[in-house]
Amino acid sequence: MKKYLGYFLAGTAIYFGFAGLGYAETTVSAEVQYIFNTLLFLMSGFLVMWMAAGFAMLESGLVTSKSVSAICAKNIGLYSIAGVMFWLVGYNLAYGIPEGGYIGSFTPWSDNSSLETGYSDGSDWFFQMVFCATTMSIVSGTLAERIKIWPFFLFAAILTGIIYPISMGWQWGGGWLSVAGFSDFAGSTLVHAAGGAAALAGAIVLGARSGRFSGKGEAKPMAPFAASSIPLATLGVFILWLGWFGFNGGSELIISDEASAIAVSQVFMNTNMAAAGGVVAALLTSFFATGKMDVTMAINGAIAGLVAITAGPSAPTGGEAVIIGAIGGVIVYFSILFFEKRLKIDDPVGAISAHGTVGIWGIMATPLSGAGAFGTQAIGAISIFLWAFITSAGTLLVLNAILGLRPSEEEETSGLDASEIGVEAYPEFKD
Amino acid sequence: MKKYLGYFLAGTAIYFGFAGLGYAETTVSAEVQYIFNTLLFLMSGFLVMWMAAGFAMLESGLVTSKSVSAICAKNIGLYSIAGVMFWLVGYNLAYGIPEGGYIGSFTPWSDNSSLETGYSDGSDWFFQMVFCATTMSIVSGTLAERIKIWPFFLFAAILTGIIYPISMGWQWGGGWLSVAGFSDFAGSTLVHAAGGAAALAGAIVLGARSGRFSGKGEAKPMAPFAASSIPLATLGVFILWLGWFGFNGGSELIISDEASAIAVSQVFMNTNMAAAGGVVAALLTSFFATGKMDVTMAINGAIAGLVAITAGPSAPTGGEAVIIGAIGGVIVYFSILFFEKRLKIDDPVGAISAHGTVGIWGIMATPLSGAGAFGTQAIGAISIFLWAFITSAGTLLVLNAILGLRPSEEEETSGLDASEIGVEAYPEFKD
Amino acid sequence: MKKYLGYFLAGTAIYFGFAGLGYAETTVSAEVQYIFNTLLFLMSGFLVMWMAAGFAMLESGLVTSKSVSAICAKNIGLYSIAGVMFWLVGYNLAYGIPEGGYIGSFTPWSDNSSLETGYSDGSDWFFQMVFCATTMSIVSGTLAERIKIWPFFLFAAILTGIIYPISMGWQWGGGWLSVAGFSDFAGSTLVHAAGGAAALAGAIVLGARSGRFSGKGEAKPMAPFAASSIPLATLGVFILWLGWFGFNGGSELIISDEASAIAVSQVFMNTNMAAAGGVVAALLTSFFATGKMDVTMAINGAIAGLVAITAGPSAPTGGEAVIIGAIGGVIVYFSILFFEKRLKIDDPVGAISAHGTVGIWGIMATPLSGAGAFGTQAIGAISIFLWAFITSAGTLLVLNAILGLRPSEEEETSGLDASEIGVEAYPEFKD
Repeated sequence: MKKYLGYFLAGTAIYFGFAGLGYAETTVSAEVQYIFNTLLFLMSGFLVMWMAAGFAMLESGLVTSKSVSAICAKNIGLYSIAGVMFWLVGYNLAYGIPEGGYIGSFTPWSDNSSLETGYSDGSDWFFQMVFCATTMSIVSGTLAERIKIWPFFLFAAILTGIIYPISMGWQWGGGWLSVAGFSDFAGSTLVHAAGGAAALAGAIVLGARSGRFSGKGEAKPMAPFAASSIPLATLGVFILWLGWFGFNGGSELIISDEASAIAVSQVFMNTNMAAAGGVVAALLTSFFATGKMDVTMAINGAIAGLVAITAGPSAPTGGEAVIIGAIGGVIVYFSILFFEKRLKIDDPVGAISAHGTVGIWGIMATPLSGAGAFGTQAIGAISIFLWAFITSAGTLLVLNAILGLRPSEEEETSGLDASEIGVEAYPEFKD
Repeated sequence: MKKYLGYFLAGTAIYFGFAGLGYAETTVSAEVQYIFNTLLFLMSGFLVMWMAAGFAMLESGLVTSKSVSAICAKNIGLYSIAGVMFWLVGYNLAYGIPEGGYIGSFTPWSDNSSLETGYSDGSDWFFQMVFCATTMSIVSGTLAERIKIWPFFLFAAILTGIIYPISMGWQWGGGWLSVAGFSDFAGSTLVHAAGGAAALAGAIVLGARSGRFSGKGEAKPMAPFAASSIPLATLGVFILWLGWFGFNGGSELIISDEASAIAVSQVFMNTNMAAAGGVVAALLTSFFATGKMDVTMAINGAIAGLVAITAGPSAPTGGEAVIIGAIGGVIVYFSILFFEKRLKIDDPVGAISAHGTVGIWGIMATPLSGAGAFGTQAIGAISIFLWAFITSAGTLLVLNAILGLRPSEEEETSGLDASEIGVEAYPEFKD
Repeated sequence: MKKYLGYFLAGTAIYFGFAGLGYAETTVSAEVQYIFNTLLFLMSGFLVMWMAAGFAMLESGLVTSKSVSAICAKNIGLYSIAGVMFWLVGYNLAYGIPEGGYIGSFTPWSDNSSLETGYSDGSDWFFQMVFCATTMSIVSGTLAERIKIWPFFLFAAILTGIIYPISMGWQWGGGWLSVAGFSDFAGSTLVHAAGGAAALAGAIVLGARSGRFSGKGEAKPMAPFAASSIPLATLGVFILWLGWFGFNGGSELIISDEASAIAVSQVFMNTNMAAAGGVVAALLTSFFATGKMDVTMAINGAIAGLVAITAGPSAPTGGEAVIIGAIGGVIVYFSILFFEKRLKIDDPVGAISAHGTVGIWGIMATPLSGAGAFGTQAIGAISIFLWAFITSAGTLLVLNAILGLRPSEEEETSGLDASEIGVEAYPEFKD
């Protein structure tokens, strides 16, 4: 008996010895996974951080030169404010939410990292913070050239500290939308439609730039944008495109096994394909509508393609991603014209259309690839849009009552650079 | 006897137990390798994608301001078209090639990832796609300011979908050049000389910009380039330099063990050293030739250094890389002058010289570091150059017959921005 | 007896079998560590390399348009020279230092990689080289618009090949400062204060730009900087901000276990928080001092916040990082005015203040988070500052005696672009 026990033990030992060997050869240890996932967040995070520069360049290029210093100051400032506010309250407002709940806690971020979470908390904070900042970057372009810098920064603090984090928690913090089955992979609604909604609220509360619809302020009546520098706007869209690989790729959240490595790769491919589809569609639409290929439409077409795929970039094939992006590219063209020509809503960069309108297209398209149901997607899109719209409008109205939002018409006509910043953007170059 | 068997089994078990332990300590599992390699492709891929912005800025800076919107639209558009075409047919035209063969299959990309390939197919597609786009980006600068946008985009579709992928397959798909022993690490000929050859074909078919060689169109007769913005061109070259770490580093294909980590590092070092050598040599050449250090030559010197080392960036020492790059920097200086002054070929950005001429220098230099034989390298360089030149010239001649390549002289004089794009690049700044 | 031996052996075998299995599940093999650490250096390195573009854009934007081509050529050139010199002598001057010593050896870099070092030598060279180049980039802005290009490049060779590497070795090579207990995580003094000191030496030796303090040369008397393009300067600061994640994050040196992944993440967070604090503080200071929010102060506030945290970015909490950066943001505001208004020292970009003054604040702040002692930190800061200041001043005085540093007043008034480069930056745009 005992002899057989010996054989059994030896056999067991050989088995585990082989298992150890085999395991080492085919698997990824928990700590290695932890490092890979943390690296994914850090790398994706710095790519999304770079989008702050993209918005700054895009907006600098698309506004008139007398407001460029102001838009630069606002973009540097809003990204800074977002970082502080998201640390101070935002992160835990979103992630401290009870399951199925509506709001988390007003507490600063603290590090609860453990091997079990699969990545360091700090890298997750960084990745989520840059998303929060992106939402406000979207807004800044639409409000350009006619909002004073103090109320702008105060609004940025409220949007990035409170408004965005609360609705973010509904989905990514495990709140009520998540429990309801809503599906938004990387923030087609949570970031982009919310940003577009806040931008729309601002455009309505502020009104149009002085002279925009009377002809006086339209530097280039043939084009929808009074762009002072097309190459800067082009640089901006390339930066956004690059950053979006982090935006969508990092939203896979892990790259710690074969399946997730394949998934992140598919997300990269589809992100690129959708942007490409958006560009081609917007250029063709522009050509068939006007006989010219408007570069500002190519730029907004790229953004539209990127926004459209953001709701679900891992499920479609590359060909499907082109179509999703191309539909976004057509939508953004007509949406920009609709807001400007019909509604007389002044959106100096087209953000309401590229992020708002197309963000909703993106979220409603995911059921086609099997993610989410139409009804739930619609409920989520409406909820987030209205939340951002109403709270932004309310905040801006309060700020208007207390501080006044708009500079005087004189100040606006001579440009915010002179009145608010004290530094002209291009002092040596005049018309 | 049986007693000894027990000892033997126990000993074996201990051995394998230790082996498992030791193996875990010193090796990299197949799945971890898979993730590392996929990460290398994704990271390198986004760096090379960023080069699309670099070309856009370089070209925007080096052309006259009346064609800047057009060059921006073309660069955004060509990168988009390349993505779609390389997915639709390019990837499998290159990789579906039979061993030693000439052409793959006209089928869309599909995912055949498995742990054995060592990286996800999607990440490989992404990495290869941005190389394809780079080839067309090279061409766009040389054709600037005098090609209509429709034939340009159609040519982009054919180059990125068919012309580039076929010759790419000859080498990287395991086709006839690869079997012949040709060596081109990261595309000194496959990408850069091919791009330069296509650019040369275009420059010849199109002819020079109106007034370029009669003096009228030469904004700055002292310099070879009619550059409207030197800082944008400078930004462009820094972007290209950054992207090139991905271009060459990712071409190591793996970073899954100690040796490949060392190799990728050496590639980074040599890429930087060669670019540095190119800059220093081009500045010195410019100084000794003209008494001034022409910044446009520094820019093209950097590109020349980068192109020169691309054929074989892992074998040379850092010092050798400086020399390879420096020779490239001297070559590009004289090549630019030769094409402009002697041949009267109008190359608004110097791409024929920086990518074409220097690409051939790069490929012929690799035997000095022990990679490839002179004869085989020459056969490869000539084959790829002629393939790209002849097919590009043919395509452009057909497009010219059907659509016409050039705008009217009036349109060209007033600028493509007005006639093709409908948006001026700098509407508020006039001479 | 022997029976028990059998059981013992079998038990041991099972133990090691399990250990192998468990080890594989929870640890990171030496080779995997090696790849992770090498990747950290390569990724961080390309981010810091990108800072060279950031300085080029920042400086192009903050100087007058007649010196922009020159500043572009200088930035491309200095980065190239730094690469060559740091390979040729710099690396071993720093790392070949004896323990507690003062200087290493004048020998070129060579690869001594082994699995034990934990990362490839080449990746370390790359990471350290870009730090070296950064030091010279800092200097270039302060010397802008009034130093001839030949002496500038010769000075760059000496600073990047000899001056910087020697003091770098004192700390990071294990020299006397390191042995003394000095603490400088990522180079608040070794890079930034040293760069600021060299810049100060240059500003004194060169004197102010012609007309700077008589009013003639002050394009914009209301602002401290004669900035020709605010969006380029803004782009520059966003590039620097992005690059700084590599600068500080890579200085953790490893990302090969859970603890170091957490540490790198904390460094990312604190780097961002300090920059944010610097921006907010500089904007508020500007507002309370002048009633306007000067965007050039926001830009220098961001840099100040980044420099301030660089001395110790891993120890503080996010909230403390905001405060460290905010104090930097206040300091930079008054330091810029102090150097300009009181000392009449002409610093076209504010680098003496942002990197020098604030670098010293950063290094003196680390004892508050428990790193280093005040006395040792002061000794280190003074030593490095004086070393860089004296050797730079000496080198520049010698170069002045031999070659002359300044162009003629005529050349300076018409701009270095014409006299030194032969290419205007914006030939189509005139006042």
